[in-house]
Amino acid sequence: MSEHDAVEVIAAKRDGAALSDSQIDWVIANYTNGEVADEQMSALAMAILLNGMDRREIARWTQAMIASGERMDFSSLSRPTADKHSTGGVGDKITLPLAPLVAACGVAVPQLSGRGLGHTGGTLDKLEAIPGWRAALSNADMLAQLQEIGAVICAAGSGLAPADKKLYALRDVTGTVEAIPLIASSIMSKKIAEGTGSLVLDVKVGTGAFMKDLPRARELAETMVALGTGAGVHTVALLTDMSTPLGLTAGNAIEVAESVEVLAGGGPADVVELTVALAREMLAGAGISDVDPAEKLADGSAMDVWKAMIRAQDGDPDAPLPTAREEHVVTAPTTGRLVRLDAMAVGMAAWRLGAGRARQGAEVQAGAGVVWHARPGDEVRQGTPLFTLLTDEPERFDRALASLEGGFDIAPAGSAEVTAYAAEPLVIDRVVAD
Amino acid sequence: MSEHDAVEVIAAKRDGAALSDSQIDWVIANYTNGEVADEQMSALAMAILLNGMDRREIARWTQAMIASGERMDFSSLSRPTADKHSTGGVGDKITLPLAPLVAACGVAVPQLSGRGLGHTGGTLDKLEAIPGWRAALSNADMLAQLQEIGAVICAAGSGLAPADKKLYALRDVTGTVEAIPLIASSIMSKKIAEGTGSLVLDVKVGTGAFMKDLPRARELAETMVALGTGAGVHTVALLTDMSTPLGLTAGNAIEVAESVEVLAGGGPADVVELTVALAREMLAGAGISDVDPAEKLADGSAMDVWKAMIRAQDGDPDAPLPTAREEHVVTAPTTGRLVRLDAMAVGMAAWRLGAGRARQGAEVQAGAGVVWHARPGDEVRQGTPLFTLLTDEPERFDRALASLEGGFDIAPAGSAEVTAYAAEPLVIDRVVAD
Repeated sequence: MSEHDAVEVIAAKRDGAALSDSQIDWVIANYTNGEVADEQMSALAMAILLNGMDRREIARWTQAMIASGERMDFSSLSRPTADKHSTGGVGDKITLPLAPLVAACGVAVPQLSGRGLGHTGGTLDKLEAIPGWRAALSNADMLAQLQEIGAVICAAGSGLAPADKKLYALRDVTGTVEAIPLIASSIMSKKIAEGTGSLVLDVKVGTGAFMKDLPRARELAETMVALGTGAGVHTVALLTDMSTPLGLTAGNAIEVAESVEVLAGGGPADVVELTVALAREMLAGAGISDVDPAEKLADGSAMDVWKAMIRAQDGDPDAPLPTAREEHVVTAPTTGRLVRLDAMAVGMAAWRLGAGRARQGAEVQAGAGVVWHARPGDEVRQGTPLFTLLTDEPERFDRALASLEGGFDIAPAGSAEVTAYAAEPLVIDRVVAD
Repeated sequence: MSEHDAVEVIAAKRDGAALSDSQIDWVIANYTNGEVADEQMSALAMAILLNGMDRREIARWTQAMIASGERMDFSSLSRPTADKHSTGGVGDKITLPLAPLVAACGVAVPQLSGRGLGHTGGTLDKLEAIPGWRAALSNADMLAQLQEIGAVICAAGSGLAPADKKLYALRDVTGTVEAIPLIASSIMSKKIAEGTGSLVLDVKVGTGAFMKDLPRARELAETMVALGTGAGVHTVALLTDMSTPLGLTAGNAIEVAESVEVLAGGGPADVVELTVALAREMLAGAGISDVDPAEKLADGSAMDVWKAMIRAQDGDPDAPLPTAREEHVVTAPTTGRLVRLDAMAVGMAAWRLGAGRARQGAEVQAGAGVVWHARPGDEVRQGTPLFTLLTDEPERFDRALASLEGGFDIAPAGSAEVTAYAAEPLVIDRVVAD
């Protein structure tokens, strides 16, 4: 394929042109095979970040990345498929209760997940806290587990969208992660190649999210919904709040424990609310309207699928979860009402305690993380526990405490802040195809 | 040096910030030593191209590139030094007569030059057409030649601004050549490190130049004049026309022959005009006001320096120059006045005939090129020679002829085009420090 050259493609985008289908196909194919060098792709990525791509370009870019690898096929399954993708947040363990819950409602959930990087945790990191559980499955094993149990959460194989894998690693070191066309095509190329019939996107907005403001989050959601719809996948996005962390825990084992509480019919109200809201969207996308997911949490059937799903991947759902060797309790400095708890502050603290990794391939601590004992709106009393910090390495406490500094506000009873306080809605908006 | 990291510096420029002195020093030093990878520098270069740099940033970037290598010192010479840099044009052989002319007027000219790439020729490529002549000199030999003869044109050693060498090669393959801050700092880092006392910049404007329009050419000129002045080098720029090629030849040996005509007191009027204009600026910059360069062309003293300069680098100034094995004459299709001769068309034709190279390191043909037998304003007669194309490889004629297609206009006598025709001034403007 020599109908283009890299400098021509880069210069076109640099000068504000829309890339042709042929230029996009050429550059992705030749980046995958190594003919287009990393230094050329990173210059192109920066030009895309700064000059943008239109919907046609993004769709073609996504198709070209899908075409760089294999596609999965779930058409042999006896039930419809639905998947969920979150853009990443603090305390976002929703996939753990959601996948077995939706499976319990009769839909197959092929949840290909990743590991975390930075202050947001990864679903596989959390599940790997369960003794024995393994993330790697062959495509055949994945299909068999979907047919038998209805839910699988596993690592994406290297065959799906290899161009995206290579490009993502490049963007990570070249300051080109923050481009909506590249974020959208990265996520959607994998989800479309994975072969799910319907998809729900949980696009996070707020301090702890990748997208700090609503307009950019909405742009990302609309772009991804259009990409999925254009590729024949029923796609809906929810814009959800990530200025406050989800639930009461951020870490690995402690988030598994919280997820199990939800599957047992309990757990924090916000985690239950978001799990059920996303389950309803997945069921609707899969064409199922006569099952109420809240009932499947209450009657234990979601828990049954969870245990079967964990066992199928060699995990022991009943084994005790690992705990951190050290803990440090932070008490409330004053009495009053918690009116703000910053997701980024909590996420950074959990990361610094060892729950997350600073670079790809590094280890994480299963027991590390942060537990908060109040959520915004709750009353707190001076001297009672506000946070519990968990780690195997006590030298990490100082930097974690520094992250929490300024990360919450307690207002005295009767103050203007308390009077003015109103909980923000968790689900901010819903984005569907035009 | 770990006070910064590459993604932080890239992200700052990506987001429109001005880079700090410390960020610039860090990124140049660590790019030179390989800690900052090519793919990171190319993303940064694209962000600089699209978001710009202010004068302070450009000056610091230039200083950091100078600091990456050695600096030359001409303070031991008994005369002042002056140098000239052209941003590159078609038929631009001016350095060849200019350096010996200015030396004949009492100023030492340390002219570090390069090879050509694309449609504009390189000074070293032209001189290498002279039998025996060699471009490589040690710093000691260069200094001795400057002291004895007063002029040297040679290849820049690898010790000057190595960061620029590495960055230039990267920009060439990543679509990031066209950034004024990077062009200006690339040129000026070498000229300042070279240690010249004064500098005249010939910034070309027009179809055959790198800068196609006057505002961008002026911005480049002003940026470079400010950089030179800030570094203590007396710097002036002339903005000169490059919509029409210079003289009557574009190639290597044929441009040497034209230069020798100028040194012999003849030659095309435009080449003489620009040579003398640049010589006057160089003399003024070196503090010499009582010598008229036009006289030094007329009295043969510039020719004497030329011959000594060529001999000092093992060339034979009296040997016959190489000629192309094949020639093809293009005759005028109509009778009238030549009202346009496009520099880019001629430059592309010369390049396609083998006078220039498509990639770094490739060979060029000494005898190849284009001779035009009329300049804009001249009368031409149907059927008489308009161009002579020269190459060793006759299969190159077709593509060269295609380049000339549409590259000139002949208007009939008395037509509106002839009435409206007025020669554009060769020297468009002069840019001095604020």
